[in-house]
Amino acid sequence: MGSRVGKQSFNYSNPPAIISGAAIAGPDEGKGPLAANFDWVLDEPLFGEKTWEMAERKMLEESAKLALRKVNLQPQDVDFFLAGDLLDQIISANYAARGLEIPFIGLFGACSTFVEAILLGSMLADGGFAGRVLLASSSHNFTAERQFRFPIEQGVQRPLYSQWTVTISGALLLDAGGMGPRVVQGTVGKVVDLGVSDTNNMGAAMAPAAADTILAHFQDTGTDPDSYDLILTGDLGEVGISSLVKLLQQRGCDAGNKLQDCGLLIYDREKQDVHAGGSGCGCAAGVFTGLILNRLREGQYQKILFLATGALMSPTSSQQGESIPAVAHAAVITAG
Amino acid sequence: MGSRVGKQSFNYSNPPAIISGAAIAGPDEGKGPLAANFDWVLDEPLFGEKTWEMAERKMLEESAKLALRKVNLQPQDVDFFLAGDLLDQIISANYAARGLEIPFIGLFGACSTFVEAILLGSMLADGGFAGRVLLASSSHNFTAERQFRFPIEQGVQRPLYSQWTVTISGALLLDAGGMGPRVVQGTVGKVVDLGVSDTNNMGAAMAPAAADTILAHFQDTGTDPDSYDLILTGDLGEVGISSLVKLLQQRGCDAGNKLQDCGLLIYDREKQDVHAGGSGCGCAAGVFTGLILNRLREGQYQKILFLATGALMSPTSSQQGESIPAVAHAAVITAG
Repeated sequence: MGSRVGKQSFNYSNPPAIISGAAIAGPDEGKGPLAANFDWVLDEPLFGEKTWEMAERKMLEESAKLALRKVNLQPQDVDFFLAGDLLDQIISANYAARGLEIPFIGLFGACSTFVEAILLGSMLADGGFAGRVLLASSSHNFTAERQFRFPIEQGVQRPLYSQWTVTISGALLLDAGGMGPRVVQGTVGKVVDLGVSDTNNMGAAMAPAAADTILAHFQDTGTDPDSYDLILTGDLGEVGISSLVKLLQQRGCDAGNKLQDCGLLIYDREKQDVHAGGSGCGCAAGVFTGLILNRLREGQYQKILFLATGALMSPTSSQQGESIPAVAHAAVITAG
Repeated sequence: MGSRVGKQSFNYSNPPAIISGAAIAGPDEGKGPLAANFDWVLDEPLFGEKTWEMAERKMLEESAKLALRKVNLQPQDVDFFLAGDLLDQIISANYAARGLEIPFIGLFGACSTFVEAILLGSMLADGGFAGRVLLASSSHNFTAERQFRFPIEQGVQRPLYSQWTVTISGALLLDAGGMGPRVVQGTVGKVVDLGVSDTNNMGAAMAPAAADTILAHFQDTGTDPDSYDLILTGDLGEVGISSLVKLLQQRGCDAGNKLQDCGLLIYDREKQDVHAGGSGCGCAAGVFTGLILNRLREGQYQKILFLATGALMSPTSSQQGESIPAVAHAAVITAG
């Protein structure tokens, strides 16, 4: 049973536990510093399928199945599957749900989807509506680029402030009565838009939403950056993170030494040509599941604020002259 | 606080009340038999905007605002806004959320979105996470056709079994402590795919998902068609409804005299050239909000099963040879 805290936040009174997680990464991600943290690294981006979209779907579905296998559970042991991705009609999630045959709730929050799923899944568990909830999210460089920008075959030069869509999927299994790191609190974000219209500059579009949600969270809950061992953002990249630090400073909040970004953790930007860092629905999912979840289990972090930001961009609305709205959701996760 | 019932269903222990609703319909829908039930009927499909997408967004946002105004509430009186639509990246919902400035949870379930929102919104309210939740969904014939099939200017001949995407939006306001028709029970559907691949034949694609969820609901809850005054489906149209009746009969379930379909209620198919009936995210939203909600308030129905079915179709996956998966969610709603 939940209880509201301030304007946008709430407590889980029986915080659900994250009892399992799995991440499947693409070839480039397997050459980065987190390679050893992923359950699988693909040899090639097609994952044995005929199309990249089918490969992405398979990554999402296989990471969900793997999260179940790790704790010896079957799809029928799960009450709900909550998932989403970047592709139109969230086809990666829809077709994975067809394969899993678990009652399905489809989400779209662009790159905020994974934390949206954590918050909702935890509400369903804490609210008595589910014993176990499976969550997943994915992105694939080749599918996202051809949908949102240019087909990769075209070799269009990308500006240095652009981010690299990560090929990765991540899945978590929540259990209302299990043991493990716990989702104890959440903050749902508002849609914020400061007028950025360059679809290559997602960091700048998303940073204001991240700042808005972080400040709302601190105000609602009476916390500050020192309350957390880590403030983890999903995929702001270098441009977005430096923008976020400034936006927070303008409001008297110094979070710089607590902030880390999944989009900056996943690649070695000295050696990998990813410009401002990683992005994509799977980025937060894969880095949290592969790296941060284990650090929580090992007690390296006792309490973190995990924030995922979504640039709610659309080729259609961009072509019609609109700017890019963004949203950020935050979950407080403790070691146990 | 919820409690689980069977494999896919659950009870709300403090069922939230639907305290307000509003529907805005397009010009064609204003020529149909439900014209007098809608709050507004548009004179022209652009709604004073520059593009159809902007018109659809405005319909969604204005119906949400109108639902609030009817009970003298402001956006800041609402804890969450749950919305989705048919367009890529759910731009109608995203941009409406930007205007409303209510913490936003984006959903995608194609035409099942409205009941998905009712179920989730009711979980958030009953679970203690929200006092009031605003829900909305929309569709627009001109935006959906050019995204999923052909631009309407092209004048492509449509098969007689195809449905007509409805131009309409509907919004509901749920209140954890208010008075009005109540959401008492829910069933979340699995993704079902019997291999239909014709994107014009959504009724056939969606009927198996509807049957699956109805039968799961009856089994989980120990009910049958006689337990309800009405079994309302979202937008199966004539093909889908007759297919659903047969699928249920094959499983020994005779629901024919209790079934009505929003896609068949909204148009006069003798006079309006809509082929197999209406479809689209807004269809269930507009017909429930405009017509059925008032019948519940007036006591004409004491208890209904409201089901929305989504064809999770995608131009990309269709072009890659995939069939159309579908999902259906069901809510039990009582007069008070």
